[in-house]
Amino acid sequence: MSKTYAGNFFEDFRVGQTLAHATPRTITEGDMALYVALTGSRFPLHCAAPAAQSVGFERQTVDDLLAFHVAFGKTVADVSFNAVANLGYADVRFLKTVYPGDTLHSESTVIGLKQNSSGANGNVYVRSDAFNQFGDRVLTWARWVMVHKRDAAAPAPEPVVPQLPAVVSVADLPVPMELDGGDYDTALTRSPYLWEDYAAGERIDHVNGMTVDESDHTLATKLYQNNARLHFEEHLMRTSRFGRRLMYGGHVISLVRALSFNGLANAVRIAAINGGLHCNPSFAGDTFYAWSEVLACWELPGRRDLGALRLRTLGVKNLETEKLAGAKVTVDGRETYHENVVLDLDYTVLMPRRGA
Amino acid sequence: MSKTYAGNFFEDFRVGQTLAHATPRTITEGDMALYVALTGSRFPLHCAAPAAQSVGFERQTVDDLLAFHVAFGKTVADVSFNAVANLGYADVRFLKTVYPGDTLHSESTVIGLKQNSSGANGNVYVRSDAFNQFGDRVLTWARWVMVHKRDAAAPAPEPVVPQLPAVVSVADLPVPMELDGGDYDTALTRSPYLWEDYAAGERIDHVNGMTVDESDHTLATKLYQNNARLHFEEHLMRTSRFGRRLMYGGHVISLVRALSFNGLANAVRIAAINGGLHCNPSFAGDTFYAWSEVLACWELPGRRDLGALRLRTLGVKNLETEKLAGAKVTVDGRETYHENVVLDLDYTVLMPRRGA
Amino acid sequence: MSKTYAGNFFEDFRVGQTLAHATPRTITEGDMALYVALTGSRFPLHCAAPAAQSVGFERQTVDDLLAFHVAFGKTVADVSFNAVANLGYADVRFLKTVYPGDTLHSESTVIGLKQNSSGANGNVYVRSDAFNQFGDRVLTWARWVMVHKRDAAAPAPEPVVPQLPAVVSVADLPVPMELDGGDYDTALTRSPYLWEDYAAGERIDHVNGMTVDESDHTLATKLYQNNARLHFEEHLMRTSRFGRRLMYGGHVISLVRALSFNGLANAVRIAAINGGLHCNPSFAGDTFYAWSEVLACWELPGRRDLGALRLRTLGVKNLETEKLAGAKVTVDGRETYHENVVLDLDYTVLMPRRGA
Repeated sequence: MSKTYAGNFFEDFRVGQTLAHATPRTITEGDMALYVALTGSRFPLHCAAPAAQSVGFERQTVDDLLAFHVAFGKTVADVSFNAVANLGYADVRFLKTVYPGDTLHSESTVIGLKQNSSGANGNVYVRSDAFNQFGDRVLTWARWVMVHKRDAAAPAPEPVVPQLPAVVSVADLPVPMELDGGDYDTALTRSPYLWEDYAAGERIDHVNGMTVDESDHTLATKLYQNNARLHFEEHLMRTSRFGRRLMYGGHVISLVRALSFNGLANAVRIAAINGGLHCNPSFAGDTFYAWSEVLACWELPGRRDLGALRLRTLGVKNLETEKLAGAKVTVDGRETYHENVVLDLDYTVLMPRRGA
Repeated sequence: MSKTYAGNFFEDFRVGQTLAHATPRTITEGDMALYVALTGSRFPLHCAAPAAQSVGFERQTVDDLLAFHVAFGKTVADVSFNAVANLGYADVRFLKTVYPGDTLHSESTVIGLKQNSSGANGNVYVRSDAFNQFGDRVLTWARWVMVHKRDAAAPAPEPVVPQLPAVVSVADLPVPMELDGGDYDTALTRSPYLWEDYAAGERIDHVNGMTVDESDHTLATKLYQNNARLHFEEHLMRTSRFGRRLMYGGHVISLVRALSFNGLANAVRIAAINGGLHCNPSFAGDTFYAWSEVLACWELPGRRDLGALRLRTLGVKNLETEKLAGAKVTVDGRETYHENVVLDLDYTVLMPRRGA
Repeated sequence: MSKTYAGNFFEDFRVGQTLAHATPRTITEGDMALYVALTGSRFPLHCAAPAAQSVGFERQTVDDLLAFHVAFGKTVADVSFNAVANLGYADVRFLKTVYPGDTLHSESTVIGLKQNSSGANGNVYVRSDAFNQFGDRVLTWARWVMVHKRDAAAPAPEPVVPQLPAVVSVADLPVPMELDGGDYDTALTRSPYLWEDYAAGERIDHVNGMTVDESDHTLATKLYQNNARLHFEEHLMRTSRFGRRLMYGGHVISLVRALSFNGLANAVRIAAINGGLHCNPSFAGDTFYAWSEVLACWELPGRRDLGALRLRTLGVKNLETEKLAGAKVTVDGRETYHENVVLDLDYTVLMPRRGA
C-alpha cells in the first residue's frame, strides 16, 4: 500500500467523521514579521508590543488572519487536497487571542455531504477547530468545498446539508476579556475614527492597492504549510484551464484586510467572518484594491468600551474601485459577479468606542 | 467626510507643523532574518549575538538601515504619499543602538517649504525623529521631497529653505558608549583591514552584484510598512511615465551597504548619512553594483579604539563598475549623472582601530 | 593592495591549509519561519516546540538543512567563489542538535588537490566543520569543487585525492542522545508508517511538486549568506552559457527533503548525507518533484526506539516522476543522467520504531 498521501476523495468522507490534522505549529515572531512583509499590514495590536499592552494584552498578539491561515493550512491535506473549488466559509469565530509562542493544531468534522448532479464530484461541509497548546479552542469555522470523486461510479451518499448561520450574532461574537477599549489611544493609528463615527450603509474606498507576484503568494501559502497543489505546481497548472498557478484565496483575504487599514484603522480585531466567497480566481501580477460597506453597527452586551461593525469588503483586481458600479453585473439576464471582483467578504470587527 | 487618508498635499503643510506618525513597531528577530534574506548583509554585529557581545553590546543589534527604514516608513503616509520625487537626505544620525524587541515610533516637523516655479508642486523639508519605547531618540534625519499641490491655484507660502549641514561633523557623530573597538577581533569578518589601513582618496570596487526582483523590493518595503503607492501598484504604474513599479530608493541604499562588506567588512556601524541622492530610478530586474571612495579618515575625540571613515558610495545598475569612468557625464554641455548611476551616498561609518 | 576579496583560485590552495570563515551567525526563530516559507517543510520537530519537547528536546530544533546551509554558506567566499562547478558532497554528518539562538561558525581544511588535464582549473577537496557558541562541532562534511586557475600557466601541485567513505556507516551515524523515539506519537504527522514499515528496494513517489521563482531561491541563498555570484547577478549571468542566474543546489536539496514529507513524514531527522550530486542545473520557473528509493533499513546499536533508513532521493524538474523510467539514460552509448534529473542524493534519516 502506498505510503504517500493523495488526499481524500468525495467518497472517502462520511458525515460525523473526525479528521485530526498533521503537524502542530508554533507561531513565532518570525512568522509575524513575514506576515507584515507579505501583506503590509499595519494594525497596531499585531505590530507593537507596547500597543497591545496598552489595551490589556500580555504582549504583541498574532494577527487574526495569520492564525487562521496556519490553522486552515493544516486542514488542506485531509479536506481539500482534491478540491475542485473552495466554495465558501461561514461561522468563522476568533475565540481566543493567539500570542507568539503559541502552538496550534487543527481538527475537522464532516458535517455535510452532497453529490453534485454531474456525478463527478460533490460538496463536502466541514466544521474545523484550532486549539492552542493548553487545549483551548482558539478558532472555529465551517467551510464547504467541491471535491472530486475518485470513481464517478461510486454511489452517492444520503445528502446532508448543514444549517449554517448567515451571520455570527452579537450574542455569539467572541470579545476578548483582555481587551480594554477604554484605554485605546488613537495616536497608535493616527486615525480619529472610532465606532460611533461609522454608520450602516456607509461606503469606504480603501485607496491603496497591492500587486502580488508569484513569490509573494507562494511564500505566504508555504508559510501556512497549505500544500494544495494548484498554488505551487506551475508544471501541473500549465495544462489546467487556468494555464498557471492559482493564488490561495486566503492570501487575498489578508491583502484586503491590510488595505482596509486606510479607512478602518481602529478595527483592531476581527471577531468573526460571517461568510466569504472567492468570486473569481486570482493570479500573480494582479493588483488588488478593496472597498467596504458598513452593514451594521452593533453595541456589545455589557461593554461600553468596544463596539462591533459588520462589514462587507470587496476585493477587486486590476480596476480602480471607483470604476466599479457594483459587485454584480447582469450577463445574458443572469446576475453574476463582475469579472474583476475576486472576494466578497462579510465579517465583523471590534472597534473601540469613544469614552463616555 | 472621508475616513480614508490620501496623504497631505503641498498646501497642507505649514512650517513648524508637527506630524506624529502612525503605528509603532516592535522590531524582532523575525525582521532581522528577513533583512538578511532581502539584502544578504553580513556585518557581524547584526548577525551574531556573541559578536555583538564581544564588543560590549547586550546582544545582537538591529542593522542601522533596518531601523532607519522602519522609522522612515512611518513618515511616508503623512509626508510623501503625494510626492513627485524624494529629493534628498541630510543630517541623518544613528543616535542609539536599537535591539530586537525595541519598539520605534516616528515624528516629523516641517522645517521648510518652497513652491516650485511651475506652481504645480513644491518642496517640503522635514526633520524626522524616531524614538524607542523608553522615549530615547534613536534616529534623526532631514529630508526634502517634491509634493504635488491639490489645487495648482492655491497661493504659494512664504518660501523657507532650511540650512542643513553638508556633513555631520566629527563633534556631532554619534558614537555608541557600549561599543569597545579595542575588543574587536577581525576573525569575525576575516578582513584584516582596520581604520588605519584606509586613506582619503582610496577607491574600492565592491566586486559582487545583486539582482533585485519584484518580490524582493516589495517584500522589503512592506516589511517597513512604507505604503507609497508607486512601489506596489502595477495597475496604477502601468500608465505612469515609468510604465511599471518603482523600487523604494532605501532598498538600494541597503543593497549597496550590504555589497560594501567586500572591502569595508569592519565598518561595523553607520554613524551618519551626510547626504544621499537617488540619481536615477531603479526597477525589478536591475543588477546593482557598488563602488566607494574614502572621502576622509577621522579620529574620534577621546577614542583610541574607533575611528570614522567618511565614504562616498555609488550604486550602479547593470554596468560593471570598472566600466564607469565617473559618476557624472556631460550631456549637451550639462553635467548630469550617468544613466546607470542610481545612488550617490555620502555617509560616515565607524571602524575599529588597531591596538596601540 | 586590494581590500576586496575575489576568492581563492586553484593555485591559492595547499593541502593541509586551514580556512576560517567569516561572520558567525545566530540562527533565530526568524530564520526558521523563513525556512518554512521558502520550502513548505512540515517535519514536526522543527515546526512546533511541544512536538520537539515530546521526544526529549529542550525546545523546537533548527531544521538540519537550514543549519547546514548557513554553515555551508560561510565557506563559499573562501572555497567556491571561483568555482566552475560544485562536484559533490560526502560524509556529511549532523552531529549535534542546533537550537534557535545558537551561533554557528565554520572552518575548512584542504584535504585534496588535483589539477585537471585542461590545465585551466582543478578540483579542490575540503573537509568543513561547523561549531556552535560552546565550541561543539555540530556539523562536518567533505565536498569537492572544480575551481578556476588565476593563471593557467601556474604549475600543477602534486595530486592528492582523499579517500572519502561512500556511505556513513551505522557505527558513525550521529544519533542524538536527547531524542527518545519511544515517546514519538504519529499523531504529529498523521502518517502511521514507522521504521519497521519500510523495506529496502521500496520506491516512494512523493506526489507534490514545487515551482521555484527567482525571489525564492535568491532569498534562501541570501538568508544563508552564500555569496556565490552566479546565483545573484543576472547582469553577469546573461553572458554565461546558462544565460541567466543559476539556482543554489542546496535549495534543491531542501525542496526535495520538504516534498519527501509525503511518504516519509516520520523521518524526523537527517543523520548523514552519504553523497550528493547536482546532475543538471536548475533555474527559476522550474517545478521540482521527488522520488525516493529505500536503499537500506538499519537497526541502531543500543537503540530500540529508533532505526535508520538509507535513502536515495532523486530531484526531478518539469516532469512527473511516473514518466521517468530511471535516473539515467544512454546517449550515444554513454550512460548519463536524464536531463530532467537535477539531484541524486544518498542520505540517512532517523525514524522512530514501533514500541516493543
